[in-house]
Amino acid sequence: MTASPTYGELTNKGASTNIAWHEASVGRDERSKQRGHRSTILWFTGLSGSGKSTLANAVNAALFERGLATYVLDGDNIRHGLCKDLGFSDADREENIRRIGEVAKLFLDAGVIVLTAFVSPFRADRDKARGLVEDGDFLEVFCAADLDVCESRDPKGLYAKARAGQIKEFTGISSPYEAPETPELKIDTGKQDLADSVELVIKALQERGVIPAA
Amino acid sequence: MTASPTYGELTNKGASTNIAWHEASVGRDERSKQRGHRSTILWFTGLSGSGKSTLANAVNAALFERGLATYVLDGDNIRHGLCKDLGFSDADREENIRRIGEVAKLFLDAGVIVLTAFVSPFRADRDKARGLVEDGDFLEVFCAADLDVCESRDPKGLYAKARAGQIKEFTGISSPYEAPETPELKIDTGKQDLADSVELVIKALQERGVIPAA
Repeated sequence: MTASPTYGELTNKGASTNIAWHEASVGRDERSKQRGHRSTILWFTGLSGSGKSTLANAVNAALFERGLATYVLDGDNIRHGLCKDLGFSDADREENIRRIGEVAKLFLDAGVIVLTAFVSPFRADRDKARGLVEDGDFLEVFCAADLDVCESRDPKGLYAKARAGQIKEFTGISSPYEAPETPELKIDTGKQDLADSVELVIKALQERGVIPAA
Repeated sequence: MTASPTYGELTNKGASTNIAWHEASVGRDERSKQRGHRSTILWFTGLSGSGKSTLANAVNAALFERGLATYVLDGDNIRHGLCKDLGFSDADREENIRRIGEVAKLFLDAGVIVLTAFVSPFRADRDKARGLVEDGDFLEVFCAADLDVCESRDPKGLYAKARAGQIKEFTGISSPYEAPETPELKIDTGKQDLADSVELVIKALQERGVIPAA
């Protein structure tokens, strides 16, 4: 640490010194090199009950087993925390997805493969999240289970409530789901086996050079 | 992957199966074990020019050199992103710190040593961030350079503008800074050498068992 500048040197010798020190700080490339894998955003989208969170957590576990840095953002850790001030109006849904996109970008910068699992029904909102990062850093995974499959699963009883009018503006019932037109990956999570779905995501990450081949 | 459940099994066999699968997913303890260090929040607070960001980035670099998972949240990556909708009113400052606290909690959960570098002048706001996590997961680092030192450095020319009345409610000049009463670490970043300051933080992390002894 002998070559370390002092606070005074940093702050009194002008912007160039300050910038030089900041450039010497740790960036995404250095992290990737140290960890042996790149970071990316895996953005899972689909109807309630389509298996987004299940698939994201299964992929997360498979990546963790390989020793990679990963993290899942989903309703459990976002809606009760960062976005607990937001409801389900159009404006609040948009702000919810905006914040998730920004947080995903931070994890990307931190060298972490971040998996987001939210219905995120509106194309414009997903595209804004995509637009926050460089091309290739955002992989949209469309969990394309049919509505009738999702409704028959109804793991949280939400479809029943929506049909009974107890939930307004429920995606797929009383609010639209805008399916991705050109997702990086489309998986029929109504028919496909979970393990096979995980393999499809892993394969996509390998093909893009995000993670090493097994 | 042969024992992997299907989506149908997870969603149709009741909550207990679903919960079991989620419990099998990767938690903070598993990450700590794999990485060989715990995660924590290092919350740097102090006046503008006190060296928070400089110190946080220097600690970050030192931890990275040891192969640890770390990340810095500061004005550069927060104010233009997650919090770009917020200004500097009391309510917006409070919301700014709230969101930073929530994001820091996510990184903590992800197994990352997260360093936040914001003036965060109000005790109540800092204590709310502390209250989001368990005891011992939040280490407040008070960068206690005297106001006259910070003002003489004035790296961004902000004190000059505040004195000229061009910035209203500037912390230390026209808005209060509420110093921490019992921070985990207090460093006189007006007098202390940067390298020595880094060592103090590293030592605090070692003493608390967050990172291994060198």
